Amino acid sequence: MNNKKACDLVIFGALGDLSTRKLLLCLYQLDKAGLLEADTKIVGVDRFSDEGNLLLKAANTCLDKFLKEERVQSVWERFSARLSYLQMDLTQPNEYKQLNDVVDKGKRRMINYFSVPPFLFKDICQGLKLSGALDKESRMVMEKPIGYDLASSKEINDAVAEVFTGDQICRIDHYLGKETVLNLLALRFANSLFITNWDHNTIDHIQITVAEEIGIEGRWGYFDQSGQTRDMMQNHLLQILTFIAMEPPVNLEAESIHYEKIKVLKDLRPITADNVTEKTVRGQYAAGEIKGKSVPGYTEEEGANTESGAETFVAVRVDIDNWRWAGVPFYLRTGKRMPAKQSEIIIQFKALPHNIFKDSFESLPANKLSIRLQPDEGVDVEILNKVPGIDEHIKVQGTKLDLSFSEAFKGSHLVDAYERLLLEAMRGNSTLFISREEIEQAWTWVDSIQNAWQETQDAPKSYAAGSWGPEEAATLLARDGRKWEE
Amino acid sequence: MNNKKACDLVIFGALGDLSTRKLLLCLYQLDKAGLLEADTKIVGVDRFSDEGNLLLKAANTCLDKFLKEERVQSVWERFSARLSYLQMDLTQPNEYKQLNDVVDKGKRRMINYFSVPPFLFKDICQGLKLSGALDKESRMVMEKPIGYDLASSKEINDAVAEVFTGDQICRIDHYLGKETVLNLLALRFANSLFITNWDHNTIDHIQITVAEEIGIEGRWGYFDQSGQTRDMMQNHLLQILTFIAMEPPVNLEAESIHYEKIKVLKDLRPITADNVTEKTVRGQYAAGEIKGKSVPGYTEEEGANTESGAETFVAVRVDIDNWRWAGVPFYLRTGKRMPAKQSEIIIQFKALPHNIFKDSFESLPANKLSIRLQPDEGVDVEILNKVPGIDEHIKVQGTKLDLSFSEAFKGSHLVDAYERLLLEAMRGNSTLFISREEIEQAWTWVDSIQNAWQETQDAPKSYAAGSWGPEEAATLLARDGRKWEE
Repeated sequence: MNNKKACDLVIFGALGDLSTRKLLLCLYQLDKAGLLEADTKIVGVDRFSDEGNLLLKAANTCLDKFLKEERVQSVWERFSARLSYLQMDLTQPNEYKQLNDVVDKGKRRMINYFSVPPFLFKDICQGLKLSGALDKESRMVMEKPIGYDLASSKEINDAVAEVFTGDQICRIDHYLGKETVLNLLALRFANSLFITNWDHNTIDHIQITVAEEIGIEGRWGYFDQSGQTRDMMQNHLLQILTFIAMEPPVNLEAESIHYEKIKVLKDLRPITADNVTEKTVRGQYAAGEIKGKSVPGYTEEEGANTESGAETFVAVRVDIDNWRWAGVPFYLRTGKRMPAKQSEIIIQFKALPHNIFKDSFESLPANKLSIRLQPDEGVDVEILNKVPGIDEHIKVQGTKLDLSFSEAFKGSHLVDAYERLLLEAMRGNSTLFISREEIEQAWTWVDSIQNAWQETQDAPKSYAAGSWGPEEAATLLARDGRKWEE
Repeated sequence: MNNKKACDLVIFGALGDLSTRKLLLCLYQLDKAGLLEADTKIVGVDRFSDEGNLLLKAANTCLDKFLKEERVQSVWERFSARLSYLQMDLTQPNEYKQLNDVVDKGKRRMINYFSVPPFLFKDICQGLKLSGALDKESRMVMEKPIGYDLASSKEINDAVAEVFTGDQICRIDHYLGKETVLNLLALRFANSLFITNWDHNTIDHIQITVAEEIGIEGRWGYFDQSGQTRDMMQNHLLQILTFIAMEPPVNLEAESIHYEKIKVLKDLRPITADNVTEKTVRGQYAAGEIKGKSVPGYTEEEGANTESGAETFVAVRVDIDNWRWAGVPFYLRTGKRMPAKQSEIIIQFKALPHNIFKDSFESLPANKLSIRLQPDEGVDVEILNKVPGIDEHIKVQGTKLDLSFSEAFKGSHLVDAYERLLLEAMRGNSTLFISREEIEQAWTWVDSIQNAWQETQDAPKSYAAGSWGPEEAATLLARDGRKWEE
């Protein structure tokens, strides 16, 4: 795939939040697992002058705070020796030349992690180009928010595309680094039991929930501009949806997977002013209680505009107009200040058309596959078994089985999503990253909803913090004779 | 269903092997579980004069020997008080009148358990009729051997039918009392995951193995007349086959289940002299070793005819000519002196037509459902999961899941097949018993094989005790590109 195995990993914004909470920790873990080449270097770039080894200190603090196990001294020594720091004003093209003193494109693949706000992307790209440090094997890594709508996302992608080609760009959605999301590929495409059961013939509907327990907590200004739909649904929930809904890809290469994901996004039935009211529910949290603790409402948070109409909760009925999913709704919901941090996919199979176990179950519960992404990952299937015993009638009972559990896998370290995605970028493998066309398709669909809300002057419904969103979210499913899994 | 709940359970041959090893133990267990009505009586009938409480002693010895837990004194007292004994010469019609002294058809349902050789059945039926103890709610219970071929089975069934009607006759096959066989009904007909996967579209083939570790051990004379095909395949293996292969019954009533089972038996493709050589393998064990212990060959057993041509092993490829099973062979095998006592059903699903996980599995193993009946009962499914971790390619690995296991069921006493079937007879429920038409269809199919062997002068192949049968049994599957699960 590539000749250079070692990397120069350059983190722009190395002293920022993501880097000092997550990236440095993941890099330590990869180093510990023996997954960093001996020659791999980590270059932190930020605007502060390097008095007193800022990056080394940051790495040290990060491990102290977030490493949940004993630090291995020999690993720490190896890891910290990889670190170097450059002070740069990212808006000054000439400063990028410094990079040539630390990176070596002849020996190592350069990975540029853009851990800074998007308004800086254009400058970084141009600076990198000027510096002469890049070559064909270089990569750039970026993360949400990749725009605010289709137009602004195009702007960002255009700026990046001036310097990097499609294969060089790693757009991260950390949900695609999760073990269980990847296990979906194995479950769906390696098991005849599921492959023959994955369509409108057997599946009744699908639910995708990404519930956050936290509120806004200091991000009010940023968040209020976007709202939950742009911040969470456009990316994470739609990405999960594509993994559930895509046709079997012809192989596991990036191009094949992206191709199938784009097809799904293209087939999403548009939501417009005509149907937005019946298909969507916006919510905004009011004061309430979470796990016994009082919390303020969204417009009472620090820095809040008390008139804000941003949604902190959204639920949508998504229809996919293709052969496989005709008549099978996907219900998506995501919100802040929910009762618990919980991300879950429910594949609800159809009820059997005829019930021969009426004596024990008036209406037989249908099979159900639950895929948990948070807080703990796992896959359960609920099937019906005979209750052991000698009752006069055969009694059946639903039992839950952990499909992903196995003695063989017990005790294996569950890899953090960022570890995986960082490693994939270093390997130059883009299967788990998101293509530009995916992002743009997703924005097209989400923009239509946003426009419809504006057109219909839809205001978010209030819900108490600590509840599962406004009543209308329940009505959305009740109208179809269904209910949310809770 | 019936008004009389209490029973008079009359065991003919009460001091015989089945009764003193199994039936009395099961009755004690049912009593302990509170499943015998307060007023239920147990009447032992045998030819010995009752000096010294023969039946009570037999029950006592039976519990001492076979009860695997502490005897509960209060249960024993209640149970032993139900017992009474009658000495009878079963060939003397007048002696049956004694029964009227102990049974009470006004209050209790009379269950007549025929635990004697079939040549006595006619006499017992006639005696019971003469005695006047029977009414419409009475039942008779019988077990294999129900004949030696179609003609002799008809003789027995005719003799019984002179006195008992279809609903009154409980033909026991103890495999149908097994928890796991009954769970098959729930798995197949309560789960859309399986109901849509249960035919030639998804299933490649099915294996049914009933392996015995024991040899002949004193039953030589009886066994040599029948051989393994008549003794084990005609009943147990074909009964299991019907539960796997039958169409969904319209309900769980006896008539509906029997109807579907008969359909399967009618659709078995006949084996005749034309195809018997390619479809069947007979074997006879020679001396060998089981678990490190030397054992003699079949013709070296006590009382053996050294020229015997009886088979102690048989393997058959069964084809079912109907829509569901076209092209899906059922491979049946049963034998004595196998390496272990083991009864198992394997549902082997088809391999997926396209493999996107070539990097970890050159050829992807297909899903497999294993239903174990002996020594321990259980249902496993083998599915493929992603191996957790961050390997360069997505690795998948087969993992086995216990489908019948559940925390909810943990610790529940696994009911003995005889307990269940005795109770069903007392309840007057015949779903789990075998209808006359089933027996006769099964004999028709087996007779054709026996005639074909005779016609082709097929002699059993020798196999070493402790092996899985003659080599030809492996060839039977190898010819189809398959192999036995071991």
